[in-house]
Amino acid sequence: MQNNKKITIAPSIMCADLCNLEKSVKEIEKEGLDTLHIDIIDGHFSPSMPLGIDTIKQLRKITDMNFDVHIMSNNNEFFIQEMIKIDVQQISFHYETSTHIDRYINLIKNNGIKAGLALNPATPLSVLDYILPQCDTILLMLINPGFATDENEKQVSYAIKKVEDLARLIKEKELDTNIEVDGRVSLDTIPSLVKAGADILVAGSTSLFIRDKSLAENKKAMEKCIIEGLL
Amino acid sequence: MQNNKKITIAPSIMCADLCNLEKSVKEIEKEGLDTLHIDIIDGHFSPSMPLGIDTIKQLRKITDMNFDVHIMSNNNEFFIQEMIKIDVQQISFHYETSTHIDRYINLIKNNGIKAGLALNPATPLSVLDYILPQCDTILLMLINPGFATDENEKQVSYAIKKVEDLARLIKEKELDTNIEVDGRVSLDTIPSLVKAGADILVAGSTSLFIRDKSLAENKKAMEKCIIEGLL
Amino acid sequence: MQNNKKITIAPSIMCADLCNLEKSVKEIEKEGLDTLHIDIIDGHFSPSMPLGIDTIKQLRKITDMNFDVHIMSNNNEFFIQEMIKIDVQQISFHYETSTHIDRYINLIKNNGIKAGLALNPATPLSVLDYILPQCDTILLMLINPGFATDENEKQVSYAIKKVEDLARLIKEKELDTNIEVDGRVSLDTIPSLVKAGADILVAGSTSLFIRDKSLAENKKAMEKCIIEGLL
Amino acid sequence: MQNNKKITIAPSIMCADLCNLEKSVKEIEKEGLDTLHIDIIDGHFSPSMPLGIDTIKQLRKITDMNFDVHIMSNNNEFFIQEMIKIDVQQISFHYETSTHIDRYINLIKNNGIKAGLALNPATPLSVLDYILPQCDTILLMLINPGFATDENEKQVSYAIKKVEDLARLIKEKELDTNIEVDGRVSLDTIPSLVKAGADILVAGSTSLFIRDKSLAENKKAMEKCIIEGLL
Amino acid sequence: MQNNKKITIAPSIMCADLCNLEKSVKEIEKEGLDTLHIDIIDGHFSPSMPLGIDTIKQLRKITDMNFDVHIMSNNNEFFIQEMIKIDVQQISFHYETSTHIDRYINLIKNNGIKAGLALNPATPLSVLDYILPQCDTILLMLINPGFATDENEKQVSYAIKKVEDLARLIKEKELDTNIEVDGRVSLDTIPSLVKAGADILVAGSTSLFIRDKSLAENKKAMEKCIIEGLL
Amino acid sequence: MQNNKKITIAPSIMCADLCNLEKSVKEIEKEGLDTLHIDIIDGHFSPSMPLGIDTIKQLRKITDMNFDVHIMSNNNEFFIQEMIKIDVQQISFHYETSTHIDRYINLIKNNGIKAGLALNPATPLSVLDYILPQCDTILLMLINPGFATDENEKQVSYAIKKVEDLARLIKEKELDTNIEVDGRVSLDTIPSLVKAGADILVAGSTSLFIRDKSLAENKKAMEKCIIEGLL
Repeated sequence: MQNNKKITIAPSIMCADLCNLEKSVKEIEKEGLDTLHIDIIDGHFSPSMPLGIDTIKQLRKITDMNFDVHIMSNNNEFFIQEMIKIDVQQISFHYETSTHIDRYINLIKNNGIKAGLALNPATPLSVLDYILPQCDTILLMLINPGFATDENEKQVSYAIKKVEDLARLIKEKELDTNIEVDGRVSLDTIPSLVKAGADILVAGSTSLFIRDKSLAENKKAMEKCIIEGLL
Repeated sequence: MQNNKKITIAPSIMCADLCNLEKSVKEIEKEGLDTLHIDIIDGHFSPSMPLGIDTIKQLRKITDMNFDVHIMSNNNEFFIQEMIKIDVQQISFHYETSTHIDRYINLIKNNGIKAGLALNPATPLSVLDYILPQCDTILLMLINPGFATDENEKQVSYAIKKVEDLARLIKEKELDTNIEVDGRVSLDTIPSLVKAGADILVAGSTSLFIRDKSLAENKKAMEKCIIEGLL
Repeated sequence: MQNNKKITIAPSIMCADLCNLEKSVKEIEKEGLDTLHIDIIDGHFSPSMPLGIDTIKQLRKITDMNFDVHIMSNNNEFFIQEMIKIDVQQISFHYETSTHIDRYINLIKNNGIKAGLALNPATPLSVLDYILPQCDTILLMLINPGFATDENEKQVSYAIKKVEDLARLIKEKELDTNIEVDGRVSLDTIPSLVKAGADILVAGSTSLFIRDKSLAENKKAMEKCIIEGLL
Repeated sequence: MQNNKKITIAPSIMCADLCNLEKSVKEIEKEGLDTLHIDIIDGHFSPSMPLGIDTIKQLRKITDMNFDVHIMSNNNEFFIQEMIKIDVQQISFHYETSTHIDRYINLIKNNGIKAGLALNPATPLSVLDYILPQCDTILLMLINPGFATDENEKQVSYAIKKVEDLARLIKEKELDTNIEVDGRVSLDTIPSLVKAGADILVAGSTSLFIRDKSLAENKKAMEKCIIEGLL
Repeated sequence: MQNNKKITIAPSIMCADLCNLEKSVKEIEKEGLDTLHIDIIDGHFSPSMPLGIDTIKQLRKITDMNFDVHIMSNNNEFFIQEMIKIDVQQISFHYETSTHIDRYINLIKNNGIKAGLALNPATPLSVLDYILPQCDTILLMLINPGFATDENEKQVSYAIKKVEDLARLIKEKELDTNIEVDGRVSLDTIPSLVKAGADILVAGSTSLFIRDKSLAENKKAMEKCIIEGLL
Repeated sequence: MQNNKKITIAPSIMCADLCNLEKSVKEIEKEGLDTLHIDIIDGHFSPSMPLGIDTIKQLRKITDMNFDVHIMSNNNEFFIQEMIKIDVQQISFHYETSTHIDRYINLIKNNGIKAGLALNPATPLSVLDYILPQCDTILLMLINPGFATDENEKQVSYAIKKVEDLARLIKEKELDTNIEVDGRVSLDTIPSLVKAGADILVAGSTSLFIRDKSLAENKKAMEKCIIEGLL
């Protein structure tokens, strides 16, 4: 029975109040959420740079949440090294900008940190043929990275199919790799994403941070959708 | 008589409490300071990425301070365009990474924003031969960019000489270009930097943000040093 | 029955008289051909730069032919944006130089232009696993790009097999994606390329522009080959 | 006496009718002009790619004009090599994108072609300290390269001063280096540019190609301005 | 019967005495080994640069061994061209840094040299879908390239599976492509690597160059392992 | 009196027998020479890669000569870090590829190693305006880097003038910076180079390694030329 499966809600720090991060994160913590999704974009990989490294360093000192870092950069090695210095719990980096995928995964895991490989929407799953068993998590981008705050950017039409395909692959290989989904993970799509096999839901403006509702209300709505997906 | 000259203290946002930026900036405002120095580093120009663009956007909504942005990037055009979208008051970019300096200065000024050209410590002033009159500000880096928080990084030994040379150049050309100094602008060095001709002082951990003292105390100490330099 | 299928002959502008383009294009038009294949190479992707953007802009004003643009560049976003400004009808760009394939396809289609994805000879079709349904056209390079005018460059030996594989894939997914073939599409190979499933034939020096024959004669010969392929 | 000095008018091919280049160039030839200025931009150095290499190759076969090529690229070596293959008479490349200036100049001159070094508006003349005597021509950009067709782009305010400074430098070193000026070289500015020391005038939409006037009329007007400058 | 298959031992030049290469290579030759594996790394692809081109040139003059060159670079074309100039017998380059794989293979083969395509550990075999028949050799990296001398770097856990998969693929397509394995090809792993289908064994510090044993002893031990694998 | 000045002869390792380096270096040592000039080129800065890092590491173990390393790379930081790990005595890197010159000089000097800044032939001395006092050595390239073994490559005509200018600059600033000259430092040019102010002579095929003469003979000839220059 799938319905005992634990689904992680990972609120995206990009939806927090960036001028009052401590307050914002404390509110999230109070809702019992234990994972914070942190987007590192360098302005080169995608035309966006939401957050700085120094901000993460200071944040680390005031919360015990798990930091789930998603690096979107053309210089993965530098940012992986920087994140290792901070006490983060998971680091994902992109396949599309990595010549040395196996090496970066080792670098992360040898430091006691979970390693994720992130795939852009169009990237096929065949790139995982040999590396899947080495990964703790596969992060599937369901919108184009760097456009999270552009409301015209819709979830790709093949989102559910890709999650299903990945879930099947993981099952076939008898692995327990996590599937993380990122991009317009909304109340509308959560049931089918969870049903398809998603384990970690990056939560943004269409779920946990829906305006005019409280965090608690939104979280409750998300949990209802998750249960619907698990049935 | 030089002692009526206005010297601007530009507190570096990197020294603020990045998890409580609103509070931090309000405190700075309360001290009567009207200019905030904002470092944009992309992790490629220098191994550092202190702050994100989204943070600056949110900050813009809660303060009327002048935003004095210092771009340290290998992709100046992108970051200049992003800063133009935000309501900032000055944008400086680096000579060392710019093929099209005159074009970028025009791009900034045509948007009603002051344009600064930033020079790394070793960069000679001869690079200003034709462009100096087009610039509102020349930002002289007095430490190596990206190492502001590395306490082993000292101000370069030729700092004062370079400020003096630039001041002389500006005077010879009968310009009123501002000289901005950035990097270990400390209580110790402010008198001679001001005396040498500095107009804008980027204030960090060795002046306005000296630990164990209040902002007000530090500001008072800085002002004393400035007056000393102006005598 | 496949033989009612419309096959498009897309004469390559590289084979036109580049010093008398208007005359050249008018002659092509007079033969009833409605699509012009335009190669944009930037000298970085491949050591070749056949044609400039300004030429295309001026050409746009004097003909109503469909412009079928094939971008071969390391900076797809710039060239896609430039082509969107001109009134072109299809834009293809290369998989091998694109980190953000889904985003570029959207960018093209949101401007009412057909989107093609171009693949170098060695690139496997598995890269299309998720993106195929989003594409109007898949452009298969059958020689190495940038060497169209090098007569020693032969069509790759696996050309027919690749077209067949792609046709099967499109059929399996019940799509109507166009297959465009580019590179030594000669009278000799057209029958089997068409038979294998090609929809758009980029026509160059070995078909529509065979020397010592008129355009009309060459076109007739091509059409005969196409019919042979459709039988 | 300076007024016997020969001033070269170099019509920019970008202002020709790019769809009827043969006709356009023949008209220019008929006016007795012997030099054609050809801009090669690769879309990377500046956001523009006016003309292709194949067009120049075909043009070479139908005219005996001197080809004065101005490369604006991040890959100077490739484009220099391509231009050497064509029978061109002068090749200029940019200082700002060249690590190996002395080598490129040798490469050009060893092939019996005149070598020019092109400088962006803001670039100081001190970069010529050792290389000036090796150059046949210094090409001074008076607008930002890549924006020749953008009518908002004005000639830089320091244009005349820079030409004067260069002329003085050449005289001091007792050289006979040509000064080529490029960018809004208009009827208004020609007298002072020539007076300042310009030898080669790249002629575009504000001089030889002023609309509603014939080439002959415009040429006559230019010559009048040149004489005015030489007095 | 597989046990007549010839397995090539290719000693890695990185394990030779680099200050006494002539002596070292002569010793290798004396053991009857005819192939020398030469790693060319440029410091950009991986943080390592074991050997220079000039050394290989000089070495070519003093030995008749087959030079089996493995290029690890971001600029394959340059290094392929340089190796072609030297009289080498095989050149492998990496898939991960190649936009124009088919072109580079042709370039090598047209010069009468065997062509290999090298794959990083995580790279899937689907990249070979069309290019496999064009390759003489597929070089499978079993450690991350550039870390051959880092003793903490272990052979990837999926090494045997990848060799088996590739052997099956080659058999299915009825090809005779060589499988070359590189990275901790040790006495422990040789039997299973050979059994899985490896044809060429790059021999380093864990096989032919085990310290405290003679070359002859190590070679004998390797041969025993090879026979074990062939049974 | 200048004639007591110590001139260093620094034999270039590129002229040694690269297959018998130990023997070659021992012979050099025996002649009483204490400095070995080591060229590190990465194939990207210039089309050449003479020597690998691993070779230098092994060489370090068998000789006590001073290693005077000249990095020619687009990635100075990596190669500086690698050279610091080996026990070298001087590291020079190129101005033309360095954004952060002051930082790299500090990095070298903080490790107790002498720091040199290398200038390409065309690079003006004005780039030294602020950094000269921080440098132990200025290495002037007198041929284009990467072409040391190309016998058609001649010493630039402005070599002597540049050395004189630099010597004057050093004297004016009352510094004791070394002037190192590299590129066709031949018996013919040594007297005037020394007279002009050169302190370190990189010795290659036109001085210490003239064919058909012994090292001892060549050294004697060089010393004679040096004395001539010092008179």
